[in-house]
Amino acid sequence: MKLLLHIAFLGTAYSGYQVQKNAPTVQGVLTEAAERLFGVRCDIVGCSRTDSGVHARDFCATVAYRETGTLTTTVPIERIPLAFATLLPRDIAVTGAEWVSDSFHARYDVVFKEYQYWIRNTRTHDPFSADREWWYPRPISEQALERMAQAAACFVGTHDFASFMASGSDVTDTVRTVTEAEIKRCGDSVVFRVAADGFLYNMVRIMTGTLIDVAEGKLSPEDIPSVLAARDRTRAGATAPPHGLYLCRVVYPKDI
Amino acid sequence: MKLLLHIAFLGTAYSGYQVQKNAPTVQGVLTEAAERLFGVRCDIVGCSRTDSGVHARDFCATVAYRETGTLTTTVPIERIPLAFATLLPRDIAVTGAEWVSDSFHARYDVVFKEYQYWIRNTRTHDPFSADREWWYPRPISEQALERMAQAAACFVGTHDFASFMASGSDVTDTVRTVTEAEIKRCGDSVVFRVAADGFLYNMVRIMTGTLIDVAEGKLSPEDIPSVLAARDRTRAGATAPPHGLYLCRVVYPKDI
Repeated sequence: MKLLLHIAFLGTAYSGYQVQKNAPTVQGVLTEAAERLFGVRCDIVGCSRTDSGVHARDFCATVAYRETGTLTTTVPIERIPLAFATLLPRDIAVTGAEWVSDSFHARYDVVFKEYQYWIRNTRTHDPFSADREWWYPRPISEQALERMAQAAACFVGTHDFASFMASGSDVTDTVRTVTEAEIKRCGDSVVFRVAADGFLYNMVRIMTGTLIDVAEGKLSPEDIPSVLAARDRTRAGATAPPHGLYLCRVVYPKDI
Repeated sequence: MKLLLHIAFLGTAYSGYQVQKNAPTVQGVLTEAAERLFGVRCDIVGCSRTDSGVHARDFCATVAYRETGTLTTTVPIERIPLAFATLLPRDIAVTGAEWVSDSFHARYDVVFKEYQYWIRNTRTHDPFSADREWWYPRPISEQALERMAQAAACFVGTHDFASFMASGSDVTDTVRTVTEAEIKRCGDSVVFRVAADGFLYNMVRIMTGTLIDVAEGKLSPEDIPSVLAARDRTRAGATAPPHGLYLCRVVYPKDI
């Protein structure tokens, strides 16, 4: 069996999820904690590679002993989150744990993932959302919000999202299926929620930048299909900053 | 005229409000920003002395030129918040500004203030509320919440709050009038909201610690009147940590 961890983290202090030399990463910190907890070298496999500054409310990662590719422990599964609590910094928490089979893969077995992008839409800067939301001071009217929602709806379905992938990525299959894409006002924020079977590099952040172009009238909702069809990064909007982005849900097949 | 600023700040990085030698304070940062904006030495008077780590959603402070005790500027009042925005760090923001008379005093003229104390009541630690809420992992049941609310209600009225003042304070008049004191669940948090014409040193944090004693059954709501009557700090609960506390509202007389 492998251990599947559900993790929440504030990404501000980390150079993303994946281990890098000479930079603190979520994977690095998790590996260190797991090795202290289990007393052996561990491999941690995450559900995605989040960027520097991106947050997660429910990131998933497996832990297995490096030597054997499996894991055994006398710690009861319900005690695992608290056992990790004493070993992790305050900006990372294990919120749940479950056993999965040795053949389970945290990244390849994902059925769909849900991201949220938070835009703080207040005239003055809010100290409590620095590093946690993108501050966009120009007021987003109800009409603009409606246009953003119409544009977001165009993302739903199976499309080639090449226009919404950061240039320089070496991914060749750029077709993804978006199952949900909605815009909602939440207090003083505007939240873009999107679920898909997979995401290209910077896809949610480029979608968000494009939705802001729609809010500003630089693009209309009717333009989105042709932006998709163009398969051209320059046709979509700017890449919104990382600190408004949250990985919120990762769904695996029921029988894992 | 003096300038009355409404300020929000995340207190984490500051050694409280009031200027200290060799420690960053909110007053220190505000003074520096005001002096850069107006080009002369300024005096900043705040509505209260918040402790290290305490936050504010609506702190009030006046700005006057040190030399004259008054302030004149060509910057229109509605532009003041944005003018400060470029001069302040991300954890402090001026959210509003208004003109008040030269005789106005930000501290002495307060009619009442409202604080909130946020308790994060989840089994596992939440990275997003570190430094922003007191993490209290033992579940607070509906019955315990009801007892806390009953105890909080005993604070309402004009009482001698000497039992709820940190020892070492040199304040002699310890009578205050609490106009509201309520406990509410808000998502995964329990929030204590209290308004009064004035607060003694650490009063809200000691009230919160006492309410937790009530939740745990160490005290009953019926004990609160005798804890008040005792005028003895040792009869109340522990001082809850600073990082769950927010100054949320400061009310002045209408005609200022």
